[in-house]
Amino acid sequence: MLTDLYQFTMCYAYWKNNHHNDIATFDLFFRKCPFKGEYCIFAGLSEVVKLLKNFKYSEEEINYLRTVMTDAEEGFFEYLASIDASSLQIYAVPDGTVVFPKENLIRVEGPVAVAQLLETTLLALTNFPSLIATNAYRHKRATGPDKVLVEFGLRRAQGPDGAMTASKYAYLGGFDMSSNMLACMLNQIPPSGTHAHSYISSYIGFEDLEFKQLKGKDVLELALKYRSELGFFTNDGELAAFISYAVAFPNGFLALVDTYDTLGSGVPNFLCVALAIYEIGYKPIGIRLDSGDLSYLSKQTRQMFTRVGSKYSVPFENLKIVASNELNEQVLRSLREQGHEVDVFGIGTNLVTCQGQPALGMVYKLVSIKNIPRIKLSNEKEKITIPGKKKIYRLYNTEGIAICDLLMGDSEPEPLENQRILVRHPFDERKRMYVIPSRVENLHKLIWNYGQACNLPSVKESRNYFEEKISSIRRDITRGLNPTPYKLSVSVELYDFMNELWNKELPIPEVK
Amino acid sequence: MLTDLYQFTMCYAYWKNNHHNDIATFDLFFRKCPFKGEYCIFAGLSEVVKLLKNFKYSEEEINYLRTVMTDAEEGFFEYLASIDASSLQIYAVPDGTVVFPKENLIRVEGPVAVAQLLETTLLALTNFPSLIATNAYRHKRATGPDKVLVEFGLRRAQGPDGAMTASKYAYLGGFDMSSNMLACMLNQIPPSGTHAHSYISSYIGFEDLEFKQLKGKDVLELALKYRSELGFFTNDGELAAFISYAVAFPNGFLALVDTYDTLGSGVPNFLCVALAIYEIGYKPIGIRLDSGDLSYLSKQTRQMFTRVGSKYSVPFENLKIVASNELNEQVLRSLREQGHEVDVFGIGTNLVTCQGQPALGMVYKLVSIKNIPRIKLSNEKEKITIPGKKKIYRLYNTEGIAICDLLMGDSEPEPLENQRILVRHPFDERKRMYVIPSRVENLHKLIWNYGQACNLPSVKESRNYFEEKISSIRRDITRGLNPTPYKLSVSVELYDFMNELWNKELPIPEVK
Repeated sequence: MLTDLYQFTMCYAYWKNNHHNDIATFDLFFRKCPFKGEYCIFAGLSEVVKLLKNFKYSEEEINYLRTVMTDAEEGFFEYLASIDASSLQIYAVPDGTVVFPKENLIRVEGPVAVAQLLETTLLALTNFPSLIATNAYRHKRATGPDKVLVEFGLRRAQGPDGAMTASKYAYLGGFDMSSNMLACMLNQIPPSGTHAHSYISSYIGFEDLEFKQLKGKDVLELALKYRSELGFFTNDGELAAFISYAVAFPNGFLALVDTYDTLGSGVPNFLCVALAIYEIGYKPIGIRLDSGDLSYLSKQTRQMFTRVGSKYSVPFENLKIVASNELNEQVLRSLREQGHEVDVFGIGTNLVTCQGQPALGMVYKLVSIKNIPRIKLSNEKEKITIPGKKKIYRLYNTEGIAICDLLMGDSEPEPLENQRILVRHPFDERKRMYVIPSRVENLHKLIWNYGQACNLPSVKESRNYFEEKISSIRRDITRGLNPTPYKLSVSVELYDFMNELWNKELPIPEVK
Repeated sequence: MLTDLYQFTMCYAYWKNNHHNDIATFDLFFRKCPFKGEYCIFAGLSEVVKLLKNFKYSEEEINYLRTVMTDAEEGFFEYLASIDASSLQIYAVPDGTVVFPKENLIRVEGPVAVAQLLETTLLALTNFPSLIATNAYRHKRATGPDKVLVEFGLRRAQGPDGAMTASKYAYLGGFDMSSNMLACMLNQIPPSGTHAHSYISSYIGFEDLEFKQLKGKDVLELALKYRSELGFFTNDGELAAFISYAVAFPNGFLALVDTYDTLGSGVPNFLCVALAIYEIGYKPIGIRLDSGDLSYLSKQTRQMFTRVGSKYSVPFENLKIVASNELNEQVLRSLREQGHEVDVFGIGTNLVTCQGQPALGMVYKLVSIKNIPRIKLSNEKEKITIPGKKKIYRLYNTEGIAICDLLMGDSEPEPLENQRILVRHPFDERKRMYVIPSRVENLHKLIWNYGQACNLPSVKESRNYFEEKISSIRRDITRGLNPTPYKLSVSVELYDFMNELWNKELPIPEVK
């Protein structure tokens, strides 16, 4: 029932006119890359296959439909109760594939009424996963390859499932960890997290420390010794909070340092406790900055680490610096330009809600019915659909880099490796080229064969698949600013056919 | 488990230091109104209460935590298995309340470890509902009061639950219908929908019409008669599709008219079928525009309705015109300025993903522990929390319009009606005023009392509550552009106390 009413009204109209079993082909694709980019990472197939397996209307749902469609004949509801996804055959590109506008990412074939009913749900299950995976990789590109990225957007996401989807597909797109425990548990994502400001402010002073010993040594006493030696004047509540946390997690001591004053209290307090537990035999992890100028603060913090490390001959210069606080792609790029000492970025709101563009415009269009190719015309070239049942290939050069993708009719012969192929721009008649591909890859995999589901990879496997795939795409195509467009081509046969259909469906208008 | 790892690590640190049972108060609030506005509509309590009722860790979840927190002592996991929400008392403002920055919308009191564990989930369950309800009402303000608003964003929402949340809370915020069937079914929202472009393009010509009769009369024959009389040259496939739809829904004939050419084919074809079914004894509904200039096209369509209606003396001038296609607040405002003839707006992507601002920054802060008020300081005034366990009142004038809200300590005496009260701006020492309220409303309701849940209203009831509440807020505060800020005040006692705490926690820095 997670679908639009109009799928049911259309379904009824097909049924009423006895057209519901006409075999149709629908393509799922997008027209424009998100985030002013020139690529997108496709994702969401595991949810799609789950939907297909469970696609069946319950009695309760059909009873509800009876109350909504009061004029519909009873036979229709019996028909609805009888259908499932076993009449469909579905091809799709795997999760983690780098894809481009107008490519048929999912191709559904089957009775028009059934294939139509799935429209909204297929879109709802692929739009956001693809958007998030793409957004995640864009953030990865902005930080550079050697940084660790942690997703922490659960609290600000668009509903709990928005968060679950975001955590899962941010991992696919290159994030390393997540704070979202349910997503980590269900998808085997490494979890990450320490403490919040409220933890720090819940400690008022040293009297709040009931347990302050590690291996029989008093951490407070040691920390106060270092504080006095280093001449720090810091907030006692914060120091108490750090000590309590270090006592609980002596092997995972990472402190949030900006509750009172980052450089005046937070980092000094961290160092006192870090020296204390180091003396007792533990390795501190580092600090987290959650406000202020991250470039300046991270550099100053690194200097303090180095200074204190060298004073006591302890290896503190490489302690981790984690940064968070309203980070986004632009901020990350700007930080990289200014220089910084951050090792780990925690990214929430802007990643998971895709601030730059909160929706991807995936659509689902009829391209063939009863073996007759259909076209959706429009005054805008961008909105014209490429008609007919189609397959898609990626052509690679000798270095393994993708040259272009090639859409062609399903019955056309497969392009051959090391043979010259003439390909055309789908809409610009002047743009043509010869390609001699070293390798030809069929992008479509059969994911659903009349009730039989393919084996789906885990998120981790899709993440690896994506990493492999992205390395075959020229880096100027995936760069953050002013990227180069990728080439989607069509075969000569498909090009000619499109134009023929266009001329047939839309006669030249007469202007009076 | 829909929470952040750091809630568990903090919980362990509290437990390890034997602080987990310290009684704490947390406030949930936001700092800045969304969409550059000056108000927000609070929502999400039904999900919050559902969470509280089910708040319990399963064995499987605890086993997963054991694998993540490998250094934690076994007693902690036993403690985790033992807790639920029965140790908490929670006050909140009802769903549909118009609220303002810094107001404690939810106040949670109980053992610090338990109250802390709920942070992320409470935020995740209130942030997006409140954002959507606010966004929906902003759209309502932009169209004006006499238009019907339909939400149709399911396919572009941020995951299925993003869509479910959006449908539900758009209805609360003033939308009239939704296309999302599951949301309609679960929340008693009136559903809405007709057909898509693919339905139109699935019909190639009249040979596709197997059933074309209504009450024994041939709709095709009649429609062709009118087409010829009116001198229209239209697409046959489109006409066939309209006829098939009208035959299926003679009482609900609403046609999507922009598949081929809106004014050249779509509207004329609609009129031919509308005249045909009207002649047979049915009332056609209208058309939907999904592309192009909605101002121009709706006006032209209205003219055609009127012209054809008057030619045949049929009441077609008030047929409905539905408009969709990437509508948002700005477009709606601009349409209203230009003039248009649209009766119903279908709004999807920009409503449900909150394009203008895809996340609300609700936060959850510790304000008291062991009866000691806590403050979170910050160099930015905006980020300072108002300390202590607090209650909140709304003060109304004689016309029933809200003058200001008043935050005060929980133990302070309630403000009295018709008595002069001195109130202060929370941060600006120069801003003070005397208020003589005609009515005083306690905004907080007890929603959870140590395991007992209050009775929650239905979405429809919250929608009515909101409509009543919004009428007591000055319209310049809720207008779309350049609104007037509302006044949040604090009592003199709370103001003085805040400043005292501030001075105590943050000594004047020494600059060397």
